[in-house]
Amino acid sequence: MALIVQKYGGTSVGDVERIKKVAERIKAFRDEGNQLVVVVSARSGVTNELIARAEAVCPNPPERELDQLLSIGEQETIALTAMALHGIGVPAISYTGAQAGIVTDMAHTKARIHSIDAEAMIKDINAGNVIIVAGFQGINSDGDITTLGRGGSDLTAIAIAGAIKADVCQIYTDVDGVYTADPRIVKNARKIEEISYDEMLELASSGSKVMQSRSVEFASKYDVVFEVRSSFNHNPGTIVKQEVASMEKVVVRGVAIDKNQAKIQLLGLADRPGTAAKVFRALATANIVVDMIVQNAGRDGVANLTFTAPANESAKAAKALEPILAELGGKIATHDQFAKLSIVGVGMKTHSGVAATLFTALAECGVNIDLISTSEIKITVAIEQAKADEAARAVHTAFGLDKA
Amino acid sequence: MALIVQKYGGTSVGDVERIKKVAERIKAFRDEGNQLVVVVSARSGVTNELIARAEAVCPNPPERELDQLLSIGEQETIALTAMALHGIGVPAISYTGAQAGIVTDMAHTKARIHSIDAEAMIKDINAGNVIIVAGFQGINSDGDITTLGRGGSDLTAIAIAGAIKADVCQIYTDVDGVYTADPRIVKNARKIEEISYDEMLELASSGSKVMQSRSVEFASKYDVVFEVRSSFNHNPGTIVKQEVASMEKVVVRGVAIDKNQAKIQLLGLADRPGTAAKVFRALATANIVVDMIVQNAGRDGVANLTFTAPANESAKAAKALEPILAELGGKIATHDQFAKLSIVGVGMKTHSGVAATLFTALAECGVNIDLISTSEIKITVAIEQAKADEAARAVHTAFGLDKA
Repeated sequence: MALIVQKYGGTSVGDVERIKKVAERIKAFRDEGNQLVVVVSARSGVTNELIARAEAVCPNPPERELDQLLSIGEQETIALTAMALHGIGVPAISYTGAQAGIVTDMAHTKARIHSIDAEAMIKDINAGNVIIVAGFQGINSDGDITTLGRGGSDLTAIAIAGAIKADVCQIYTDVDGVYTADPRIVKNARKIEEISYDEMLELASSGSKVMQSRSVEFASKYDVVFEVRSSFNHNPGTIVKQEVASMEKVVVRGVAIDKNQAKIQLLGLADRPGTAAKVFRALATANIVVDMIVQNAGRDGVANLTFTAPANESAKAAKALEPILAELGGKIATHDQFAKLSIVGVGMKTHSGVAATLFTALAECGVNIDLISTSEIKITVAIEQAKADEAARAVHTAFGLDKA
Repeated sequence: MALIVQKYGGTSVGDVERIKKVAERIKAFRDEGNQLVVVVSARSGVTNELIARAEAVCPNPPERELDQLLSIGEQETIALTAMALHGIGVPAISYTGAQAGIVTDMAHTKARIHSIDAEAMIKDINAGNVIIVAGFQGINSDGDITTLGRGGSDLTAIAIAGAIKADVCQIYTDVDGVYTADPRIVKNARKIEEISYDEMLELASSGSKVMQSRSVEFASKYDVVFEVRSSFNHNPGTIVKQEVASMEKVVVRGVAIDKNQAKIQLLGLADRPGTAAKVFRALATANIVVDMIVQNAGRDGVANLTFTAPANESAKAAKALEPILAELGGKIATHDQFAKLSIVGVGMKTHSGVAATLFTALAECGVNIDLISTSEIKITVAIEQAKADEAARAVHTAFGLDKA
């Protein structure tokens, strides 16, 4: 018998038929003797409908009221899921975020969880009930409903698993787990059995879309082991946990590519202290997420600054930088046809020659490297977009990821 | 400057355009210097949609979960109404039933309000905000969401008006107020300016559909004066309040008819102590609301018992009484083409000849009286359905209700 937290996303509970399927899956786990807390999202599409209605009455609605509104999406799903369980003979009790004791800070629409008072939940679990908790929401110290922002339901599940010391936390999604590479591109990509939080974070930030980074960070901080698995089958997924020594035997855990990148170059900037700060503050103010940054301190008091950003934001970036260029001189060049390729693995810390293997693999398939950036457990290169898939396959093979 | 509670029903907030109109109306009151607490229902149709979804996952959903589900209807409207006010420059804060401190008993789907802790609300009012409260819902001492059942939003408004000692409580509906008779039937019916709680209750129970009795009872118990008025115009409505001496000058306040009645006769029952109790317990168990009851203690140890019930329930009543008739002997006769006509007025207590005037008016238009039942401030007769409208007009005139 185990105490299990499960999380089902909006697609898994998208309509009444799917909710009934989720209920059957929950029942199967309970029939095996487990205790369950289940976190559900709003039915897919509901949140967007509510936002459209909000914008129809007020172009810029107050965030407190937006949270009051959006939280009903999950409140609907918890009640329907609890009912569906009753319908098949399983006692179930639904909890809103507030009822589950999920206390957050005051930051509406992107609140952080402060604490969880799980007393009521634990009492109901011990009385034999399945607990259904609304993901994505909590309550602040004023009693106002807050929402947790993107990926909020994963965060709810992981936080509850930590609070009730669950044995297992299962994040159900539409993929089987975390793969060594995107299986749509690298045909012989394999599902990873175990991965460390840090590797998962680096993969997420490199274009692997399985989970939002903040949920992984939260799990890492509170040491909550969780499993990413599919709600469409019963295969085991990928366990995400603290790094253990044996993980270092594998040099590279996975390869990620992000094909939607632009390379932006600022050429001939006045090379003064504070130049880079001005540039990146302007980009941050425009909400542009910048990644690889390379600066060449130039001669004659001018510098060249290069960075990558999502390709669909390169025009916005150019606009945001206009006043800076007017002040510092220099010109801008944007190239939209770029991709980022990253290799991630905690084994890099103790293995040498990783970069050499990567560069050799890329050279052998004729891929030119435009930018390089490294962290302790990741190497990222910016390359030509058209060759990204081929490069991913070559690198995947070069690091032996094809083999079990 | 007054402290005003307003209540808008599901039709008034039926879509985003109507919500914006309600916001304009609220703003107009606020611009006159008033403080406002506004109670809103769910958008019309939403509650039925949610019930349909509930029944699709579970034929007989638990009432706690049904309340958890249904309460989101009002939660949507409060957030949208608060947003619409923000959109036109009015600071507004939405409150769920729980946030408004509305504590109820444990009876899910038909909870009674125990108490209201209005402290937070009063603080926000005094800070200059319009408060938007979800009608129809509260929270019980376990922290579970409860709903108040039919007419629940009126009840919320009246209870809040009592709790915050509002100067005025306005119940907005789709009619102008309470009329001396149904204007669709009696063309010269007039809007009543003031009516006592007891008269309002008797009219409601006699077929006048303006408000549920429980809200009027609650207002009477806590002495909350309220006004029934239209959300489609700015006319003054009908004030409902404690009886005052001057009200007795008017003998009859209004005439109500209910054309959907059956007369059910039980003939030749064994006349023993407990016979009537058995009959009406069987009907109560079948949830049949019985009204006028007449018993003729007969000769030879048999009795005849006659009562009225909604016509669409006469078959159900006959079925419920089968075992009783098998036990006590006797037979049943049901007649579906009946109507009830009632005259209501606190003035009856101090005026004589009221019954005589009623019976004369009915006789003069050839209406036969089948059953008669009286209370201190009401006389009801059961008559032939086909003549009900004509009878209502004659009685309305006979008591001088046509005249201002």
